[in-house]
Amino acid sequence: MVDIVGVVVEYNPFHNGHLYHLTKAREEVPGAHLIAVMSGNWTQRGEPALINKWARTEAALQCGIDIIVELPVVFAVQSAEGFARGAVKTLEATGIVNHLCFGSEAGQLEPLQTIASYMEAEPPPFKKELQLSLKKGLSYPAALHRALSTVSRTGKDMPLSAETLENLFTPNNILAIEYLKALKKISSEMIPLTIKRRGAGFHDLQASGDIASATGIRRALFKKELGVVNKTVPPPSREILFEEIAAGKGPVHEENFADVILSLLRRSSPEKLASLPEVIEGMESRLKKAASSPDLHSLFQELKTRRYTRTRLQRILIYLLLSLDKEALSYFNEAGPHYLRVLGFSRQGKDLLSRIKTRAFLPLVTRPAPFIKDPLISPGAKKMMHYDILATDLYALGYPSPQQRTGGEDFRRPVVKFDPAVNR
Amino acid sequence: MVDIVGVVVEYNPFHNGHLYHLTKAREEVPGAHLIAVMSGNWTQRGEPALINKWARTEAALQCGIDIIVELPVVFAVQSAEGFARGAVKTLEATGIVNHLCFGSEAGQLEPLQTIASYMEAEPPPFKKELQLSLKKGLSYPAALHRALSTVSRTGKDMPLSAETLENLFTPNNILAIEYLKALKKISSEMIPLTIKRRGAGFHDLQASGDIASATGIRRALFKKELGVVNKTVPPPSREILFEEIAAGKGPVHEENFADVILSLLRRSSPEKLASLPEVIEGMESRLKKAASSPDLHSLFQELKTRRYTRTRLQRILIYLLLSLDKEALSYFNEAGPHYLRVLGFSRQGKDLLSRIKTRAFLPLVTRPAPFIKDPLISPGAKKMMHYDILATDLYALGYPSPQQRTGGEDFRRPVVKFDPAVNR
Repeated sequence: MVDIVGVVVEYNPFHNGHLYHLTKAREEVPGAHLIAVMSGNWTQRGEPALINKWARTEAALQCGIDIIVELPVVFAVQSAEGFARGAVKTLEATGIVNHLCFGSEAGQLEPLQTIASYMEAEPPPFKKELQLSLKKGLSYPAALHRALSTVSRTGKDMPLSAETLENLFTPNNILAIEYLKALKKISSEMIPLTIKRRGAGFHDLQASGDIASATGIRRALFKKELGVVNKTVPPPSREILFEEIAAGKGPVHEENFADVILSLLRRSSPEKLASLPEVIEGMESRLKKAASSPDLHSLFQELKTRRYTRTRLQRILIYLLLSLDKEALSYFNEAGPHYLRVLGFSRQGKDLLSRIKTRAFLPLVTRPAPFIKDPLISPGAKKMMHYDILATDLYALGYPSPQQRTGGEDFRRPVVKFDPAVNR
Repeated sequence: MVDIVGVVVEYNPFHNGHLYHLTKAREEVPGAHLIAVMSGNWTQRGEPALINKWARTEAALQCGIDIIVELPVVFAVQSAEGFARGAVKTLEATGIVNHLCFGSEAGQLEPLQTIASYMEAEPPPFKKELQLSLKKGLSYPAALHRALSTVSRTGKDMPLSAETLENLFTPNNILAIEYLKALKKISSEMIPLTIKRRGAGFHDLQASGDIASATGIRRALFKKELGVVNKTVPPPSREILFEEIAAGKGPVHEENFADVILSLLRRSSPEKLASLPEVIEGMESRLKKAASSPDLHSLFQELKTRRYTRTRLQRILIYLLLSLDKEALSYFNEAGPHYLRVLGFSRQGKDLLSRIKTRAFLPLVTRPAPFIKDPLISPGAKKMMHYDILATDLYALGYPSPQQRTGGEDFRRPVVKFDPAVNR
């Protein structure tokens, strides 16, 4: 049997760092096929994606991915743990992925595994510290960081030194650790594989050679610094990006949702705001007060604290936008993904799909319309899909061209197919 | 005691037709003072007002009104009956208004009174026909029209001929009839007084001499045809209008709410939409389908039918915007206004206010903040005020200048005071 490597991605946009990762993955597992689980139109940072999921799928297929499965939005917009768990469960559910490949700072699996095992075992001192920090309102990564530091200083059962821990604690590694935790959690047989990141750091805004962070590339694009984009985004992805922009469907900026978000904040009762995930005690009144801000910039100025990072606030606003409350989210986290929504596949991916059909333990969805009408599909699955469709319908209102803002794109767009011999 | 004439207005914007009406009212009741109950930031057509309620108050005071009381938004955005009833009850509640003055096509009270008495008595054949037409989904004026025509053709108890009825049935007369009905309903002692309209008809878009309809003036303004505005809007109102525009606070156009409205439609379940006033059987699915429209123009194209006039659709969208459902509205209609929110007064109005204070049977509100915190104020009154505040907070998002979009304007703006000896 051919090896199948799974990756978890946002490709916002697909850049040279992503290309490097895929090349390395192929070196590590020669002859492997690649399946990516990708966020749809909204990202883990609580932002709209630069261009829509179909365009990003097209770019990914042209750059070497064989199948793109959408990470349901209810997982895609969560903080690291929920995001990683939803993604790993999705790859597992294909029934054919046997490697999970992800980036990390040092490219060494062992220390990451050590932390992941430690966290997954949930030793009481660590669990207590983590709960404490979360209750204090720290963001998940910050709480994790503090809990681990505390136990490494005081506990006897923490196998890594405080210094090693400190060096490990970067955004990419946090996701890596969460993938490893998720693999353990579901006793997955997927083999973890980590690749050392090259070039610019996660938050670096400067390109280093031909590699820049996605954040840096997005900023360059909004500032119309096309030099950066040309240098750091491979030609197929760049062409698609520019085509979308020319069609008035990109770049989609959070600012395009300012009115919608401010109107929702102004309309929502404090109780409604308190019901949103990641909103803890007291935050609802601050949100309500900040709702008077004239624009998003002032809103974030008003709200941002050490406890409430910008990313966390943005996620909260997306929960509000989607009407995704604590109760709904905890149901989805408990239940896990309910379907495999295929956004696109290459010629090779087509053959893989027939294998998935026989092996997968979740339904394969290529067209949402019949799926949500199917009497055999559970209400929970339909509800999850409802959020994906709503997420697209709201995303469309952020397209720069008013003519492009028609809803129901999930029902109109066919699965993206790419055959290298035919296309381009 | 001095006579007090009450008028029901939107002043969107205050124009020469309004000035003419006030002059005539003063002729009819010499020495009278004038109290206007005015819609706030949203109008009976379901549209945002051109400029906000404080600016329109200022214009009205400078043009001769002594006190402006805000018609709570829960009445201001209703169709004729609810609008008129809320307004008449508000004037009645001042305890000092002894004339109610309104325009009509012919300026003759008698035939209007005849219809109003007939309708108010609700004879069974008429009531049955009206219910039938409303159930069929006709708009309120259309249903009224049909019911009256039917009874005048078939009934024995209808005192007016079909032809007389036909001539009476114009938008201005419909409001006039509703004012008369409301007076009877609450056994008011206010003396009705009608003034023949001069110049352009309600829907006419062309100016006739120095008079144009408010609709015509708004259109001219959006098309930047300032000639029409200069000719038909008296200098004080015009100056204020231009000042607001220069400050980036006008003209406020429905189109500025396109994203907010489309996002709400896309987010709302059919059940939620069915709960909105004026939405009858089946309309919710059409609304849901039309939610995919890329802009408001296409939305109305998709939705407009003979039964669902544009005005009615716009009102439905405002109900959605404000989360004002059938249940809430029927409570407010039953309860009537809960307070007299004074938006502004002239020097003469100041003296009148002290009289109102001793005579009114509703609390006088000049500052909403202490009002909504007052433990002696009923939850129903606070809820009504909550809608006024929300209406302003959402209206602010439609200001052309992003810097002006700060919420909480109802808490920041003082009552408008105008002293002709001091100001201007």
